[in-house]
Amino acid sequence: MNIESVILEMARAAKAASIWMARCPTAQKNKVLLNIADRIEAEAASIQAENQKDLDRARDLGLSDAMIDRLTVKDATIQSMAQGLREVAALDDPVGAVTKTWTRPNGLEVSRMRIPLGVIGIIYESRPNVTIDAAGLCFKSGNAVILRGGSEALHSNQALAEIITRALKAADMPEKAVQIVPVRDREAVNILLAQEAFVDLIIPRGGESLIRFVVENSRIPVLKHYKGVCHVFVDESADLDMAEEISFNAKVQRPGVCNAMETLLVHRTVADEFLPRMARRFAAAGVALRGCPETCRILTGTSPATEADWYEEYLDLVLAVRVVDDMDAAVAHMTQYGSSHTEAIVTSDYRRARRFVREMDASVVLVNASTRFNDGGQLGLGAEIGISTSKLHAFGPMGIDELTTTKFVVFGDGQIRS
Amino acid sequence: MNIESVILEMARAAKAASIWMARCPTAQKNKVLLNIADRIEAEAASIQAENQKDLDRARDLGLSDAMIDRLTVKDATIQSMAQGLREVAALDDPVGAVTKTWTRPNGLEVSRMRIPLGVIGIIYESRPNVTIDAAGLCFKSGNAVILRGGSEALHSNQALAEIITRALKAADMPEKAVQIVPVRDREAVNILLAQEAFVDLIIPRGGESLIRFVVENSRIPVLKHYKGVCHVFVDESADLDMAEEISFNAKVQRPGVCNAMETLLVHRTVADEFLPRMARRFAAAGVALRGCPETCRILTGTSPATEADWYEEYLDLVLAVRVVDDMDAAVAHMTQYGSSHTEAIVTSDYRRARRFVREMDASVVLVNASTRFNDGGQLGLGAEIGISTSKLHAFGPMGIDELTTTKFVVFGDGQIRS
Repeated sequence: MNIESVILEMARAAKAASIWMARCPTAQKNKVLLNIADRIEAEAASIQAENQKDLDRARDLGLSDAMIDRLTVKDATIQSMAQGLREVAALDDPVGAVTKTWTRPNGLEVSRMRIPLGVIGIIYESRPNVTIDAAGLCFKSGNAVILRGGSEALHSNQALAEIITRALKAADMPEKAVQIVPVRDREAVNILLAQEAFVDLIIPRGGESLIRFVVENSRIPVLKHYKGVCHVFVDESADLDMAEEISFNAKVQRPGVCNAMETLLVHRTVADEFLPRMARRFAAAGVALRGCPETCRILTGTSPATEADWYEEYLDLVLAVRVVDDMDAAVAHMTQYGSSHTEAIVTSDYRRARRFVREMDASVVLVNASTRFNDGGQLGLGAEIGISTSKLHAFGPMGIDELTTTKFVVFGDGQIRS
Repeated sequence: MNIESVILEMARAAKAASIWMARCPTAQKNKVLLNIADRIEAEAASIQAENQKDLDRARDLGLSDAMIDRLTVKDATIQSMAQGLREVAALDDPVGAVTKTWTRPNGLEVSRMRIPLGVIGIIYESRPNVTIDAAGLCFKSGNAVILRGGSEALHSNQALAEIITRALKAADMPEKAVQIVPVRDREAVNILLAQEAFVDLIIPRGGESLIRFVVENSRIPVLKHYKGVCHVFVDESADLDMAEEISFNAKVQRPGVCNAMETLLVHRTVADEFLPRMARRFAAAGVALRGCPETCRILTGTSPATEADWYEEYLDLVLAVRVVDDMDAAVAHMTQYGSSHTEAIVTSDYRRARRFVREMDASVVLVNASTRFNDGGQLGLGAEIGISTSKLHAFGPMGIDELTTTKFVVFGDGQIRS
């Protein structure tokens, strides 16, 4: 069979399985999730043996240490996959939940009921844990899923897929509810992205180039996350101790992730006081600064920022710093250079706090808290399939509710239109 | 200026205006909407004079009577446009509404707040009233909008756009919040559909070929409505008087619209009793039937239905009729041949009613009510920008809430991540 037939057959089978999945009772879904978790632990050795094949091949191909690290299924990876599935099993089932009910003057009782999206395609890099995390969330939300992980992880992913398949079989559920693309050829991705008749949503997870490739080639709607150029604005009314802790946390606690701060904006009135103490704290943590002229005046010796710095997602211990005249200038900066991802203000001023949350166009807007809270788990969504920086369907962290949609349910007693 | 520059400039200007629109207070938006309504009434004569230019040209081009009818701005059209705007002004403003609030264990207060999508492009046929209806809904929901109506309506649309522009100017609001593509060339549509950097959503309104063209050429997300192959299933437990009224209403009350019934499914147990009386009623209304073999046995002389009939959206006084063995067969038929638009059951059986609303995969699922209620106004959404038959973002009738998304707003008092 050629690749096109393989993918087309998978897509058709997923669509058929999705009808079954949509009707599957919560208890049965949870049982399967817990069973997969148990099997992953019980069969850790064989998963890791398959993973070793991928690792050997990766070393032959000369992959970077960072890539090999992400590819490795450690004992801790096994534990975290199993634990993640148990947490997903414990979440409320969104399917069938009625989000709103109202009655029309003619007596019709109208409500909106959550239903699965149908078939979801996940395209990701060579991290075998994503296979389990994504499969678990799609499964709990009643969707069929087609997983296409990085070609370097194929053996590991197939080992995990086989465990899932056996758990589905054991529960008399359609095996095609969770499928893994079994070929390495990248052409498989292009073909999958063309199956709009069968696949309802594509979620790419990985670096910006992977995501751009998916967006540009997909005929299926894509929920995407480009980058996080996140800001903290320290207002003139800020508690400067709090501002220091928040700024430090936002930059340093985990600099390589999308919700880390990339640019610090400081109100002119407090810049002379705040910047030197903040700079000492950053220097001790090894953070390199790139400053606007005013920042360089206050912190002599700081590298000057170029226009490009304001757009930069460093994902590293590097921070751009700009002194601004007022909150309007801060908001204007974030609007122009930001990525609508996460924006924070530190302020003690009631009106500015209100205006900031109202006016700031970002998926998560925070007052007096670190940008690092833009995360499904941290915000209480239970688990996260990703973060969306585009507005349609979902904006910000996406939990399992975001893997559903709503239909209208109408109960009448013979109503007709006149 | 070439077309590309014109469209690009419009898209940029819309994006800039959208920031202003997102922050615009409700009272000011309502004032502008009411002002546009007043101006449309006051300047009806000049709108109709411009419309006459379109009509003269349409006759020269030999357009069909039906198209000319839709193109004509009658006195009633003026009234309905003005009235529509007043109704939109009276709707609750979705922007800023907090849909949910919760507190995290660390004290963070998290909420989801509705915000506009940004810039919406509406692509539609030669119906000048859509210009006002769509502009009003996008405006009320805080979005900037680019309108591209059918080229045959250009004079009419420009006259309406000028009124909107003057109302915006009078209120000191950015004129570019509502713009009309000023060129007839279809290339303008292709260029608009490529402005993903500035336009957040495209809504096509019109026939299936227009919608397919937009979907196939857009790099911007599209909310679309293909067709309505809607069914009524008359269960064995149905009150047959009710079933007769609902079936008649669903087919005959307005056969040319997407929520009219196209196929009637009848439980075998009641077919002998129900079909003859229903057929008499339909015959009196001039409805032509296409029956399955069993239907043709009961109603001798009925034209046999072909496989293609089950997929057909007649939009006319034609109805396919099929006798089914049970509810499972009815649901299977709807799943295979339907368009996930609107599905109704007539039943007195509690368990079947519950199962039907749970299992039926359609944007509106009704028990004991006519399919004709799949309509934003009828379901209580206030007004409708369209109906979506795809699941992402919105499924079913879309009111102004569906022209918004939500952001997360987080209030803290210094929280950081550890």
